[in-house]
Parts: sequence; C-alpha cells; structure tokens
Amino acid sequence: MEGGEGPETASAAAECGHQPLTPNDVKDLLHSVDAFLFDCDGVIWRGDVLIDGVRDTLDMLRSMGKKLVFVTNNSTKSRRQYAKKFHSLGITVTEDEIFSSSFAAAMFLKVNDFPKEKKVYVIGGEGILDELELAGFVGLGGPEDGKKTVELEANCLFEHDKSVGAVVVGLDPYINYYKLQYGTLCIRENPGCLFIATNRDAVGHMTDLQEWPGAGCMVAAICGSTQREPIVVGKPSTFMMKFLLKKFNVSTSRMCMVGDRLDTDILFGQNAGCRTLLVLSGVTNLSTLEDSSNHIRPDYYTSKLSDIKKLVLE
Amino acid sequence: MEGGEGPETASAAAECGHQPLTPNDVKDLLHSVDAFLFDCDGVIWRGDVLIDGVRDTLDMLRSMGKKLVFVTNNSTKSRRQYAKKFHSLGITVTEDEIFSSSFAAAMFLKVNDFPKEKKVYVIGGEGILDELELAGFVGLGGPEDGKKTVELEANCLFEHDKSVGAVVVGLDPYINYYKLQYGTLCIRENPGCLFIATNRDAVGHMTDLQEWPGAGCMVAAICGSTQREPIVVGKPSTFMMKFLLKKFNVSTSRMCMVGDRLDTDILFGQNAGCRTLLVLSGVTNLSTLEDSSNHIRPDYYTSKLSDIKKLVLE
Repeated sequence: MEGGEGPETASAAAECGHQPLTPNDVKDLLHSVDAFLFDCDGVIWRGDVLIDGVRDTLDMLRSMGKKLVFVTNNSTKSRRQYAKKFHSLGITVTEDEIFSSSFAAAMFLKVNDFPKEKKVYVIGGEGILDELELAGFVGLGGPEDGKKTVELEANCLFEHDKSVGAVVVGLDPYINYYKLQYGTLCIRENPGCLFIATNRDAVGHMTDLQEWPGAGCMVAAICGSTQREPIVVGKPSTFMMKFLLKKFNVSTSRMCMVGDRLDTDILFGQNAGCRTLLVLSGVTNLSTLEDSSNHIRPDYYTSKLSDIKKLVLE
Repeated sequence: MEGGEGPETASAAAECGHQPLTPNDVKDLLHSVDAFLFDCDGVIWRGDVLIDGVRDTLDMLRSMGKKLVFVTNNSTKSRRQYAKKFHSLGITVTEDEIFSSSFAAAMFLKVNDFPKEKKVYVIGGEGILDELELAGFVGLGGPEDGKKTVELEANCLFEHDKSVGAVVVGLDPYINYYKLQYGTLCIRENPGCLFIATNRDAVGHMTDLQEWPGAGCMVAAICGSTQREPIVVGKPSTFMMKFLLKKFNVSTSRMCMVGDRLDTDILFGQNAGCRTLLVLSGVTNLSTLEDSSNHIRPDYYTSKLSDIKKLVLE
C-alpha cells in the first residue's frame, strides 16, 4: 500500500481526512503511543493462517517496550483458547493481554453484581460458557443446544428455566429455533432478564474464502422476536476499556487501535479516544474506506501490520 | 368484554380514543360496511381450534350480503391449504377469499415483472414455494434446506446459485446457518437481488399454549447479516389491498378490518383507510391496548368475533 497508490488515490484519501501511513507517521506513533491494541482476525491472522510479517512486527514493538493488547469481538473462544492459538502460531501472548467479547460478557455480569444463583443462557460458542464459568457464573445452552429440535404439537409447552437472569448472544453457526425460543422466553418472561450481545458484527471470515453471517445476525434475530435492544459489550462499545486501563495503566490518548473494520475497530478506538490505524488485510478495502457513504475515518491506513516495521526501516 | 368493564376501564378506553363495541356500533358497522376483512389466527381460530361462535357469525354476515375476506400474515400455508383448513373446521371459504402473505410474495414478483428465468430462494415454509409455483416462478430452498449443515473448514467455499434474483423470508421453524448464509450471499452478491419479507410479526402462536418467534425473527436475522432492509408484502403493508380492491370492487372506506394485533392488523386497516375492530381473542389484551406506549388505536374493540352476532340480537 505504502507509496504505491499514485496521486489520484492520495488526493481522494486526503479529502476523506485519513492518509496512508508514512515513515514519519510511524516515527510519531512510536514516540507518542505506549500501547498498541490489535484486533485479531484480519490483522494478526486470517482464519488459522498468520498474516505475513506479523510475528516480527510484534517482536519489534515489544522490544521497544510497547504494551500489546489483543481486543477481539470473536466470542467463540475463551481467553485461554486464544492464548493457545497465538502459541500455535509461534507468538507468545499471555491471557491477560487478550480481551475477547466472551470475556467481556462475563465481566459485564461481574461488575454489575449479577447474582451467582441466577443462570445465564448462551446462544453462542464454548468460549462464552468457559468465561462465565471462570467468573463464577452458571451458564447453560451453548453448543449442547445445537442439535435440539422443537415439537410444534398444539398442546406442547416449551419449558424454560425461570432462574435465567441473563441471555448472552454471540456468533452461533448452530443457531436453531430451539435456541431462539429459549432465549426469547427468558428475555420476555423472566423478570429483569438481561439481554447481552457479545458484538453485532454483520459478517465474519468463518472460512478463508468468504464471509458468513456474524453475531449481528443472531443478535438481530433475538431483537426481532423480543422487540428489545441488547447491551453490547464488544467493540465498538468501550465497556472493555476500563479493564484495559486498570490492567495497563496507560491513558487512552497514548494508545493506538489497529483493526480491519471501520464500524467496530476504528469506531471503538475513536469512541475511547485512541489513535486509530486501519489495515487493509481484512474485511475493509480501499474503496469501502473512501466511499462517500463511509463516515468512519481512521487517523491512518496501511495495507498490513508489518508495514509498521517496514516503514521504521525506511 | 361488552358492558362488563366498569366505569374505570370505560373511561381509560375513552381517553385512548377507542371504545368497546356497543349494539349501536354494530348497527352502524353493518350499515356502512360492505366487506369484512379478517385476520385468521387469534380471530377465526387459535392453532387448529375454531374460536367459539365464529361459524355462526360468519354465516350471519354472509346472509346479510357482506363480502368476507381473510388476510393472514402466516406464510406457512398456500391459499389452497388455507381453504382446506377452513373446510376442515366446517367453514366454506374459497381460495379467492384468502389473501396470505405467501400469496402476496408471489404476487409482488408478478406485478414487478420478475424475470421467469430467475430463481427465488425461500427461507420459510412450503406455502411460499407453492404460491411461487402457481405464479410460474422457480423457487428453491424452503423445507428441503432445513436439515442442511455447513462445513466451516478453512478452504471450503459455500456455493450459491447466481441466478437467484429474489430471497423471500417468512416464518421458518427450521432456520439454520445454511439458510442464513445462502440468503445472505444471494442478497449481497447477486446483482439486483430482491429481499422480500412476507411479514415482520415478532411472535406467533405456533402452539396453543404459548408464543414463538415469528417471521420478524428470521427477517431481522437476514437484515443483521446483510445490513439491508426488506420489502414487506404482508400486513401492515397495504401491498395486498390493490388485489383485494380489484377482486371485490368495494371502496376501502366501506371495509372493516378485524384483527387481534395492533401493529399488523389494525395498522394495516388504518393504512388502507378501513374501519378497524380489535378482538381480544388473540395476542393483544386490554392492558396492552390501553398502555400509554401504544399509539395504535382501533375504532372499536371487543372480546371476540362472535360479539358482533350477540350485539345484533341485543
């Protein structure tokens, strides 16, 4: 991306108020930023494949004393599972450096003193159930409801657990009518039941070759049947930021959020008061960024994370 | 309902601008209305059980020369299947008197000259596929995709038919990730692909004992993944009204819409310029009607359809 765009693109970019990352920008960023926040899918990896040059770039940033934090909306894994994934790709990351939306859902319940005797119904993956358990909560649903079917006989009564006090909805490739009815009944009939969305991403790269419906699809389905709006704990909500600040003791003005999505990553960074860098190695391409319908403008953009290391050396 | 509410309720009702049906209202309605439009579920039947007194009331209206029309958002059946259901409950209704949202979806494509060589992907029941076929269109999906699963292997490519020019979404108790991805890909990747919702009812009485997620749930899911809004052909959209007017040659001011839902039936009646009568034998109860958050006010309300016959005799 860097330097290869030609005058027309550079001019369009300038009109939009963002600019391709230059060696001077990188110098400035490295000088004024103490912590880099990274989205994972589309920035660090695509599916299960590490993006070219990521490992060396992260090593360089660590060697410069920068704090590295990984903030992902993907709720299918727990923090522990994420740390394992990083390790399998040859990158050392501790669980403490990972802030996933599955963890955010559990932390939301914790900071809001969700009663331990209440249960949490999960539409989503194992990662949410794991984080709930680690935080001391009882989850139900999740993958084990993926094969359940419903009986639509006239006199059949669909029973749900009256002690469910929260429904957490994340990405769920095993979504079915059983889960939709279960979550809907809890939210509608259990007094005070919370409706928490890990995130509302419309689509995600569930496979390398194409996008698939994201958590925003399942969350919208529950909105559609309950006529309720959820509390969103993942990006672009800044709910996670207070944990991050407590853990890392860095002001948000000295953070840079690096992501591949405008409406989650870049908006999250802007909402929190961070610098923002869009990488074009994920779901957003240059034409989307520069389209007149887009009003989310990162401070900088570049083709991929490793451009930071490349530009330092220029 | 009639006469038994006491002064407090009557006063609350008067403030809301609607009133419980009285013998004089019925006289006036029978004098000024030539066609009665009925919702089915919650008005004519609940599930598979006819509501008390409906048959005699319909007979009385027919004997008075009133036109009877049945307008239902339920897309799971075709008009032919609905006529059979009426017959099984001892009521003679012709297919021509039935306007279902499955029929509306097919008619929408017909009046918009949808090319016959294009296909229609269906998230919903057999009723939609039947109506599409009767209108000369090729449908795919529907029930046969209910047991399909997805392979989320890294290199797996989910293929969809590039000749799909419309996706019709209705109530689908067999909703799954396969259908959500199929519909999403068609809408996103097939140029000009239409996104048609039979209706957006949040819930419906899929069984006698409780409500279940309605078509609004599946439609919202597709909105969530495509970031597109659908064309709605069922109530409260008045799309069906032009067919109705053509068929029955009655002005809308001489029609009365009778339904159990405020946001579909009563709104549809009001949008079309009809009189409106809410019956409390379905999803709406008196407290919902009189709640300050409700802004949809029928001209009249009563407990059930047979009150019309009862009040005539008073």
